[in-house]
Amino acid sequence: MIKVLGIVAEYNPFHNGHLYHLNKAVQLVQPDYIIAIMSGNFTQRGEPTIIDKWDRTRMALENGIHLVLELPTLYACQTAELFATGAIKTLHQTGLVTHIAFGSEYQNIEHLNTIARIFAEEPIEYKKLLKTHLTQGLSFPAARLKAVKQYIKYTQAKDNLSSQIIDQILKGSNSILAIEYLKTLIRLKSPIQPMIIPRVGSSYNSVAIEGEYSSATAIRKSLLSWKKWDLVSHTLPHISLKILRDSINRGRGPVSINSFEQLLLGMIRQASPSEIASWMDVEEGLENRIKRYALECTSIEDFLLKAKTKRYTYTRLQRILTHGLLGIKTDDVIKFGINGGPSYIRILGFNAQATPLLNKLKKTSKLPIITKPSHYYRYNSDNINKIFEYEILATDLYVLGFPNPEQRRGGQELTQGIVRI
Amino acid sequence: MIKVLGIVAEYNPFHNGHLYHLNKAVQLVQPDYIIAIMSGNFTQRGEPTIIDKWDRTRMALENGIHLVLELPTLYACQTAELFATGAIKTLHQTGLVTHIAFGSEYQNIEHLNTIARIFAEEPIEYKKLLKTHLTQGLSFPAARLKAVKQYIKYTQAKDNLSSQIIDQILKGSNSILAIEYLKTLIRLKSPIQPMIIPRVGSSYNSVAIEGEYSSATAIRKSLLSWKKWDLVSHTLPHISLKILRDSINRGRGPVSINSFEQLLLGMIRQASPSEIASWMDVEEGLENRIKRYALECTSIEDFLLKAKTKRYTYTRLQRILTHGLLGIKTDDVIKFGINGGPSYIRILGFNAQATPLLNKLKKTSKLPIITKPSHYYRYNSDNINKIFEYEILATDLYVLGFPNPEQRRGGQELTQGIVRI
Repeated sequence: MIKVLGIVAEYNPFHNGHLYHLNKAVQLVQPDYIIAIMSGNFTQRGEPTIIDKWDRTRMALENGIHLVLELPTLYACQTAELFATGAIKTLHQTGLVTHIAFGSEYQNIEHLNTIARIFAEEPIEYKKLLKTHLTQGLSFPAARLKAVKQYIKYTQAKDNLSSQIIDQILKGSNSILAIEYLKTLIRLKSPIQPMIIPRVGSSYNSVAIEGEYSSATAIRKSLLSWKKWDLVSHTLPHISLKILRDSINRGRGPVSINSFEQLLLGMIRQASPSEIASWMDVEEGLENRIKRYALECTSIEDFLLKAKTKRYTYTRLQRILTHGLLGIKTDDVIKFGINGGPSYIRILGFNAQATPLLNKLKKTSKLPIITKPSHYYRYNSDNINKIFEYEILATDLYVLGFPNPEQRRGGQELTQGIVRI
Repeated sequence: MIKVLGIVAEYNPFHNGHLYHLNKAVQLVQPDYIIAIMSGNFTQRGEPTIIDKWDRTRMALENGIHLVLELPTLYACQTAELFATGAIKTLHQTGLVTHIAFGSEYQNIEHLNTIARIFAEEPIEYKKLLKTHLTQGLSFPAARLKAVKQYIKYTQAKDNLSSQIIDQILKGSNSILAIEYLKTLIRLKSPIQPMIIPRVGSSYNSVAIEGEYSSATAIRKSLLSWKKWDLVSHTLPHISLKILRDSINRGRGPVSINSFEQLLLGMIRQASPSEIASWMDVEEGLENRIKRYALECTSIEDFLLKAKTKRYTYTRLQRILTHGLLGIKTDDVIKFGINGGPSYIRILGFNAQATPLLNKLKKTSKLPIITKPSHYYRYNSDNINKIFEYEILATDLYVLGFPNPEQRRGGQELTQGIVRI
């Protein structure tokens, strides 16, 4: 049997830390092939990517990935839970992936698995505790944390974790994602073997460029604020730097949420509170807060800083803006995302060595494989149509953020071919 | 009885031609007071105004107007027929206006009145002809022109007009407006006396600066394209120039439809064809054409040039964009604009001599007078609420076109006071 390593990624952009992670995973697994599932033009944090998904696919392929699949925006731009569900389910349904490697601030996979199992299986006692805390008004992550701590403390679980350790685990955004990956694998009864790769360099959220391993956030911030290449050139593989530079030279980047200032502010000012309430993740009167600050503020950054609360974080609000932009409604996420999907495997690109892998994929995949985007509707599937039409719209709007007006034509989702190197 | 002169205007911006028209009308009527009813932040041609309505009100007052009323956007950004209906009805319902003066390419008011009477009274024979031409697929203006020519030819109207004269009359955009003004006066059985002021200088649509009397279109174009004051300074009264310059220095202008490029293209790309079909003035599959060119084009100018046809003119498409921007639906225009309104008199500004006029207005007006915008809802009238809420939205979106980000705060409709000089 061949060994196929799966990786969940955003590569926004592909930097030295990503390369380190990839090399470590390859050392451990010794895979025949590597498949990455990657967010499209909008990320889990609700932001448009700094350059488009085709150039980010090229980065991944040039750095050693054999095959890049797309995580549909309906999953990519969501909480850790939905993001992980979409990504892991897709990798599982390829029927090919044998290992999945991911980074985590917390390294002990057995501890992570203990928590993941509780989230996956939801024992009655845990569910009661969770319900109590939710009724008391805690946010879902806070209620879940409290419930899992109490559950582990009061049940005689053999690998008992202290409250301090659980606190520590659930503080890391990558650990939380890791637990969600594990949870999805458990629910799917997947034979895929998960492995944790220790992280190097700056933490995910760090905004400072710190040596050779800087976070993607810091790299984007440097490029957007100072537009100086020498500040970031040592943080990216040479080939990533070249692709990034070419993309920006053509005026197809750098893109940020600020690139959509007029559209986002205008869209909220236009929308009625009840329309805003229908956007995914808007709850309990948040629509009025969103409306109020979109009138009061004249920049998106100002809006996010003023509108955020402990419960409605900066990232959550940013995701909500993207949901509004793309018209992602709670109902659609439930119907097509949670209950109906993932409904296809979409190939963004592959390298010259991937031909045998693709031939195998055609036989093993439990989902239709989209290689020609303009033929997506031929499957006559509501689920495929709906999820893919969000993708078309996401790109039609994303391109409006390009600095070069000539690059802003619509329809690029259907005309950009698969990336091959 | 006092004589009050009414004028319908956009003053976008107030130039020498407007001053000439005003002076001529004053010479003819010798009025005690002059009331102008003026478009707000969006014009009859579907464009945002070059500077906002408060500064344009100041221009009007400084140039001799005593009282400036607002023509609500629901009427202002519409065909000649609705524009004229809103403006003339409002002036009529002040209960004060005795004369209305307007420019027209064609000067013989009796000839204009002959046509206006047919449009106002719609004799059965005329209606039959109109219906036939509409069924044959002619646009409303074309069908109406053909019907009125045939009707005058075949009936023995005493002031028989030749087809050539009718063609000539209905070619001028100001003559068409003039006929609509006359038509509304006839329908209202209004005692107001209409008068035509010969126009001077360039025609309405001329885009070249031609001496001291240049069109507002040419002045806007010069300011927007070349940003050179010396090209336009001789075409505006000194005080207009000062107000325009101050407004632009504060970053509250110049505004044009191109200032909304991202918002307009994004809005159309977001909208489903059926949503677009609900915008005022979109008919018969035009939604697909709009959708198609918003994807294909990367600028609004390109969109308008490519999407226009003989039937869907540049101006009509531009109005449709504004209808989309403000969410103006056909149903609302019929319910609140045509059947329900105008429902209030909104004072934008007045000069120091206007106090007796305002005191009289309070007694004679057949409509509630809005002097404090933030109290608009106190009348508990659906009609007032709906029409005024379009005004609030129009300003919340208009300000997003200001070059200076600090000027883009929402809520200005309610916080900008009445202009007094």
